[in-house]
Amino acid sequence: MKKIPILIFSLFLLYSVTAQKTARTLTSPGKAATVTVGLNPAGEPFYRITYRGATVVDWSRLGFLTREADLSKNFTLIRADVSAHDSTWKPVWGEESSIRDRYNQLTYVLGHDKLGSALAIEFRAYDEGIGFRYKFLAKDNEGRKITVTDELTEFQMTGDHLAWWIPGDYDSNEHVYTAGPLSAVNTDIYKPETAISTKHIVDRYNVQTPLTMRMQNGTHLSIAEAALVDFGALHLRLDPKTLKFKAFLISTPDSLVKSVNTLPFNTPWRAVLLSRDAAGLLTNRLILNLNEPSKISDASWIKPMKYCGIWWEMHVGKATWDYAGSQTGSTAQGLQPSGKHGATTANTKKYIDFAAKNGLGGVLVEGWNVGWEDWFGKMKEEVFDFTKPYPDYDLDEVARYAREKGVQIIMHHETSAAVPSYERQMDAAYAYMNKYGIHAVKTGYVGKILPRGEWHDGQRMVNHYVRVAERTAQNHIMLDAHEPVRPSGLHRTYPNWMACEAARGQEFNAWSKGNPPSHECTLPFTRILGGPMDYTPGIFQIEVNQFDPNKKERVHTTVAKQLALYVTLYSPIQMAADLPENYEKRPDVFQFIRDVPVDWDETRILNAAVGDYLTVARREKGKPNWFIGSITDETPRDFTLKFDFLEAGKTYEATVYEDGPGAHYETNPYPVNIRKVTVKRGDTLKLKLAASGGAAVSVIRK
Amino acid sequence: MKKIPILIFSLFLLYSVTAQKTARTLTSPGKAATVTVGLNPAGEPFYRITYRGATVVDWSRLGFLTREADLSKNFTLIRADVSAHDSTWKPVWGEESSIRDRYNQLTYVLGHDKLGSALAIEFRAYDEGIGFRYKFLAKDNEGRKITVTDELTEFQMTGDHLAWWIPGDYDSNEHVYTAGPLSAVNTDIYKPETAISTKHIVDRYNVQTPLTMRMQNGTHLSIAEAALVDFGALHLRLDPKTLKFKAFLISTPDSLVKSVNTLPFNTPWRAVLLSRDAAGLLTNRLILNLNEPSKISDASWIKPMKYCGIWWEMHVGKATWDYAGSQTGSTAQGLQPSGKHGATTANTKKYIDFAAKNGLGGVLVEGWNVGWEDWFGKMKEEVFDFTKPYPDYDLDEVARYAREKGVQIIMHHETSAAVPSYERQMDAAYAYMNKYGIHAVKTGYVGKILPRGEWHDGQRMVNHYVRVAERTAQNHIMLDAHEPVRPSGLHRTYPNWMACEAARGQEFNAWSKGNPPSHECTLPFTRILGGPMDYTPGIFQIEVNQFDPNKKERVHTTVAKQLALYVTLYSPIQMAADLPENYEKRPDVFQFIRDVPVDWDETRILNAAVGDYLTVARREKGKPNWFIGSITDETPRDFTLKFDFLEAGKTYEATVYEDGPGAHYETNPYPVNIRKVTVKRGDTLKLKLAASGGAAVSVIRK
Repeated sequence: MKKIPILIFSLFLLYSVTAQKTARTLTSPGKAATVTVGLNPAGEPFYRITYRGATVVDWSRLGFLTREADLSKNFTLIRADVSAHDSTWKPVWGEESSIRDRYNQLTYVLGHDKLGSALAIEFRAYDEGIGFRYKFLAKDNEGRKITVTDELTEFQMTGDHLAWWIPGDYDSNEHVYTAGPLSAVNTDIYKPETAISTKHIVDRYNVQTPLTMRMQNGTHLSIAEAALVDFGALHLRLDPKTLKFKAFLISTPDSLVKSVNTLPFNTPWRAVLLSRDAAGLLTNRLILNLNEPSKISDASWIKPMKYCGIWWEMHVGKATWDYAGSQTGSTAQGLQPSGKHGATTANTKKYIDFAAKNGLGGVLVEGWNVGWEDWFGKMKEEVFDFTKPYPDYDLDEVARYAREKGVQIIMHHETSAAVPSYERQMDAAYAYMNKYGIHAVKTGYVGKILPRGEWHDGQRMVNHYVRVAERTAQNHIMLDAHEPVRPSGLHRTYPNWMACEAARGQEFNAWSKGNPPSHECTLPFTRILGGPMDYTPGIFQIEVNQFDPNKKERVHTTVAKQLALYVTLYSPIQMAADLPENYEKRPDVFQFIRDVPVDWDETRILNAAVGDYLTVARREKGKPNWFIGSITDETPRDFTLKFDFLEAGKTYEATVYEDGPGAHYETNPYPVNIRKVTVKRGDTLKLKLAASGGAAVSVIRK
Repeated sequence: MKKIPILIFSLFLLYSVTAQKTARTLTSPGKAATVTVGLNPAGEPFYRITYRGATVVDWSRLGFLTREADLSKNFTLIRADVSAHDSTWKPVWGEESSIRDRYNQLTYVLGHDKLGSALAIEFRAYDEGIGFRYKFLAKDNEGRKITVTDELTEFQMTGDHLAWWIPGDYDSNEHVYTAGPLSAVNTDIYKPETAISTKHIVDRYNVQTPLTMRMQNGTHLSIAEAALVDFGALHLRLDPKTLKFKAFLISTPDSLVKSVNTLPFNTPWRAVLLSRDAAGLLTNRLILNLNEPSKISDASWIKPMKYCGIWWEMHVGKATWDYAGSQTGSTAQGLQPSGKHGATTANTKKYIDFAAKNGLGGVLVEGWNVGWEDWFGKMKEEVFDFTKPYPDYDLDEVARYAREKGVQIIMHHETSAAVPSYERQMDAAYAYMNKYGIHAVKTGYVGKILPRGEWHDGQRMVNHYVRVAERTAQNHIMLDAHEPVRPSGLHRTYPNWMACEAARGQEFNAWSKGNPPSHECTLPFTRILGGPMDYTPGIFQIEVNQFDPNKKERVHTTVAKQLALYVTLYSPIQMAADLPENYEKRPDVFQFIRDVPVDWDETRILNAAVGDYLTVARREKGKPNWFIGSITDETPRDFTLKFDFLEAGKTYEATVYEDGPGAHYETNPYPVNIRKVTVKRGDTLKLKLAASGGAAVSVIRK
């Protein structure tokens, strides 16, 4: 019964749109995907997407409401330009060394009396999906302000697909995913969540992008955005009756205003990623291809790396961020030494020694600067000073020692979301970093945004994150942003922007119900489609009661799965997140973290089911060695891998780190069986994954 | 009839307040002023002020509404501390070389269940007025947020005083004053005003502070604020029936929130300046005394100066701010040279030559940096680049030439009110200035504030202006802020903050109905009570049709009055605002501007009537020479001055610049009669002031 009204509506539109002779169809180079666009008699633009013969987005509206003009209707087609493109580009770092960018383009140029200027809709048809964006043209109105009050773009689904979603939240992406049919979407189930301190869920039917779905025929699609700049982030509001999504932009402090732009401007790209199967989503480069090329001409200073740091020990209660030792971040106690402060000169040197010994490129130090005593939840504008270390952190000495040991310090800038203060200090902060030879920063945006009324994912903050990427690039600083808007492929344009958090990371396992076994099996198909995530894998001490026997929290994986994450969760920076002493207890297991690289020439998805399991093989950048990660959710699984990706005629030594006998993420997470086998092209390897278990394999050419 | 309800209410309060035995009276050291404070049975605080035996503020409420607690009532008196103070301090620059700070203080400490912390009201009784502020104490709640939704402070007037007011406007102080009885206040008359591009008048009965009034008995009072930091600016909302004012704070973007503060904090001072006559208001130093001492330990680099600059020629149509020559500031035309651009290297050198030849310390250059083509009214966040000159402005050469000639360049930073952009560029901009040896900046805030929803006079902007004063001080840069909140004596604390505009300046005469003859006679008693104004006097070409014969605007004074303004409108920076060629036509008249200093050891008010006339004599800093300015409104006046302030036994040469025969501001503004007379202590001098005329006198010791 549900589908009948959809069908009728669709037929009506098809008739009326095509009857206007404004309909144009664009087909992808390999004919896999098509998009058709046209105007109905009211001058309203509509589009439809098909993939391998099936409709994946049925007739759906395009357009905008703005204060200056109603851009929903009364359009006329001025012209439609078509062109073909095929090129290949080399990312500074990534999952492969080169990426083909092959598409056909249709620019659908519309006239409209009220705007006094034309709107163009630019479509790109790839075999792996459709991208489109709106171009607000200037004509004689360059510099004119456009106040966007609503985006009318719709995505009419053609069935009650299985979806993996998190709620539309203005301030956070740190939710657990829900898997279920579209018709069951209801964000009310997120109301009891308390582990996320700053969240703002406005509607029962608003979900985040990228929104990944599986159709009945096995086709996977994901509605995402690319190149999010100068606009509010894109959510989708579902009409559960018609299964139609409507674009929902995060607002400015005026809830009636979504963004304010200046003619001419382009919106971010709206993208529908398409694949015959789940695996195909993970090698889908549509989002990257829709982004602008790198703006950094000399990228030689940008270097993927593994790192350790003074961080997890605060999460598990061994140390504190603040010098005064309160750990709450909300009691002003003055600068009394507590003996619990993590970021001391001596402790940092210990981590530097550990990094140098184990080939980790960097050491993150959190809690090094003044301000941590009293900030959490306070919305204070002036809290952190980014050029003032605590008295027990001798940065001269730390920097000297790190240089001597060949290790980079990763500086931490927790802004407490007091953005004006951070923006005022940026120049000074980056100059300070350069003075000490520090070329990597982790930023943080914990708390409600200042100025009040702004949101983490609104236009002003979107511009802030990009600004930070630009300014750090100018200062030769690599960026890892925590609590920003989720990425949209801008790391192509700013390859110093190594990773974002912008999702529920490992840390939730330290102080909440944590991340369910399906979580790491879902992230690559959803959030990580937009760009790398600093998930911080590698926890060996699964039960986090090491320093407080009453602490009940735990990591919801086996240790072997923690290893596999270094391959399955792609990022050019990967933390070895646990304490050095925990790694030193299991040097044989830690060996995989020592060996696994963070930059790749090739990537193969060996098997995949969203939320269930995933096996990925990647070839190390510039080397013949492969690394494999395989993970599962709470269901134990057996896989047989085939080494058909190895070079013919060569032999390799494979070291397999797999769940040991009786391993189970809840009852027995620790056993890791390590075995070595010689393999060559065509060989097979049997892997047994425990409940929420995994396997990691290094395959080194002999 | 009007006074009866007031009286009844007052008696009732007096009874109920004093009956609680919480009443305390504080008397000023010379017994001129008293303030009585007490709680009524509901625990509501009230106060009353008397001056020389008469009540000037009858029983009026004190208190606040906050989101966290209702701080209007249920207070208990914990204690009342009294102390006496007498000291003298020396301003870095000013109207006199030392200022006495003599007062008695009462700290009225209140307990309140709901706040979980006490409120104290600190009263200071001076012979020249009463100041009070609220101290939100922290106790165990340090760091706790207080969301102020309303200030309940009232000022119950005791009669229908004659008032000089401008409307309460969130964004502008650039209004013409209205003189009239309180009962006739009605800001609706300001609705037709179009010359002020950014204004926001919210209420028919809201007026700005300082609000100056004359009582029937001749007493003058002005309700003002001092040390406005971290709070919205104070307006007064009049109840026209009871003649009671209530405090009205400029709001945050949330119109229900006035400010957000963190415990502990003090509000700005609320001040009632008192004087037996109008003249006494001008030597009343209550506002300065209520401010904190200077935070600049080495102030040797701060130097009052006269200046000329590339500015008025844009107002009168000779040149443009923008390189492209559009002058509208709202058409993006790209960087095409127009030949009309004012801020060229050659033109700047011409001004440097003029300044050097005539003893002017500085040259202001507006329109030197890119961005002027397209900004006005656009609310663009990124417009001006403060480190990028236009192609025809060679700052290397300009700075070199200025240095060679011993003249300072005053840099201009028009922010277009895009404050986040300016704050991000501040460090770089001030470093750039220092690189070129530039130590003075004029800032501008034309347009609506970004972030949207903020106001020129709201808490966030108040903090911004102070931040600019602090950062410029750190960089040894003197500050002249245009379009900021009106000053509140903070130039004591930041003596590099030389002046503000924050009122209707000379520029309005160039492109609007202009400033009426009473305007310059009103400013010293109202806006300038808070601090110096950069009015930009000295226009010799009264009719501004020099470059466009169709231009109908004009200055509404005689030339002689323009000279007198250098003395009557106190400021440590004074512009010689007209074009060099206009000064060069009348070197004899210009001689007064060459001679008049901008820093003083002594100031005497020889006569004064608010809005009508004013005669001021000041002694040059470190010298025995006096300078006198006398001005009148549209009424011609004759004055006889008595030289009783000269040193006995010395002779002086007085050069008198007075309105020539037949002078009249509308029909014949140009004649200036110059005569020299020898004078000594006790001599008299007759001055004849034309309609909106004036006289300027230099009195040089022989």
